Amino acid sequence: MHLDVYPTAASAEGESFESRAAVVIDVLRATSVITAALDHGAVDVVPVATPEEALALAQDWPQDTYLLGGERQALPIPGFHVGNSPLEYTAERVGGRRVVLTTTNGTRALLAARGAASLFAASFLNARVVAREVAATGRDVAIICAGTVGRFDLADTVCAGLLVEALTGPAVASELNDLALAARELYGLHRGRLPELMYQCHHGQRLVALGLGDDLVYCAQEDTVAVVPRWSDGRLVPSTDPTAPRA
Amino acid sequence: MHLDVYPTAASAEGESFESRAAVVIDVLRATSVITAALDHGAVDVVPVATPEEALALAQDWPQDTYLLGGERQALPIPGFHVGNSPLEYTAERVGGRRVVLTTTNGTRALLAARGAASLFAASFLNARVVAREVAATGRDVAIICAGTVGRFDLADTVCAGLLVEALTGPAVASELNDLALAARELYGLHRGRLPELMYQCHHGQRLVALGLGDDLVYCAQEDTVAVVPRWSDGRLVPSTDPTAPRA
Repeated sequence: MHLDVYPTAASAEGESFESRAAVVIDVLRATSVITAALDHGAVDVVPVATPEEALALAQDWPQDTYLLGGERQALPIPGFHVGNSPLEYTAERVGGRRVVLTTTNGTRALLAARGAASLFAASFLNARVVAREVAATGRDVAIICAGTVGRFDLADTVCAGLLVEALTGPAVASELNDLALAARELYGLHRGRLPELMYQCHHGQRLVALGLGDDLVYCAQEDTVAVVPRWSDGRLVPSTDPTAPRA
Repeated sequence: MHLDVYPTAASAEGESFESRAAVVIDVLRATSVITAALDHGAVDVVPVATPEEALALAQDWPQDTYLLGGERQALPIPGFHVGNSPLEYTAERVGGRRVVLTTTNGTRALLAARGAASLFAASFLNARVVAREVAATGRDVAIICAGTVGRFDLADTVCAGLLVEALTGPAVASELNDLALAARELYGLHRGRLPELMYQCHHGQRLVALGLGDDLVYCAQEDTVAVVPRWSDGRLVPSTDPTAPRA
């Protein structure tokens, strides 16, 4: 198995993913939001590039069947129902509804990888169940870190490392690119200390400065969610891992 | 002090370096070659983008005053005097001569950063003496990993981490970007085991496959050279660190 990690959405654009399983990671916060929304009963999440596109898409839908969510420069979008904090995506708000989501980095990464044979969204919340579904595809793997405004993001990369660790091991013959090797090593260093990682990385510090520190604590939880967001026809649908222990 | 590490030459293009000290790293092998050449008595090293440019530049120069060196796809360039192995840049060959060098990744990174207030080339061979000269500028710092064909390169990043470690510390107030944080952590993991790192990374494996394993051993030596290659007027000139211990 070939396993390549890409540092940013931009670095994945122009790459071919059609024969590979791809995973997009935007820990702070798009893929954590997607994971939380589907875990809390959203029907699906439709990522779109711009707020205008979100509004145009939803204009003929009945009220109360959908939510518009997302951010620009980490802040809520005027006129939208929810921002980009996973804590806003409660069962009460999202249960039974469709979410249209537009974010700066995560959406761009998902759209860059939409040609993949299989496409998933992962966060610390659900990384190991995603890894299990990715492994089940039997394909080469591309892990795309969304990055922050085109730059390397430490939280995304450490989460990629958790996936690399879960996907490789003594029983699996694998060929890793350099960033996959580095990500696995970085996860080894930050294992068990994910909240500190969130406060250490640049994007986490920015969110704290905006008063969004609670989001960091939420997004630092590891393997608390059994839902796998899987790309299907332009949206992410919940694919609950059948091998996960039932509550 | 702000300290930013860039993963590839491409990621540095379009950035502004004019108020910063910049360091370019291409461990395998351009900046190791530059370090070795200047350590062995080359007058200067002129990096150019293409073999054609190298030939045009040197056409009026007296024979025996210069060497044409470099690589394409890791292999020597037909008609050039030397390839891109630092072992070729012996005192006998390069002493008193100018070297015109064209390589795939390192040259591109140097040209991307040529607008910097001060610009240096570093490798494991001379990282700490370069760090001392960089610190002496008193400026914010940009460390540009050349990368391999536009991709993240583990050896370059670990060497960047050595520089970050040397430039920061309890006595220095610094703000690091995420890749600077990661690079410093990765250097901590690979410290004292640099030859293994070279054999582990993708570009190292490629060089071994081409029969160039001796280059990896050479380039993995840490702090064996006291020469600092400093950019001056389109070329790299030796700037021996005055604080280095004398032989």
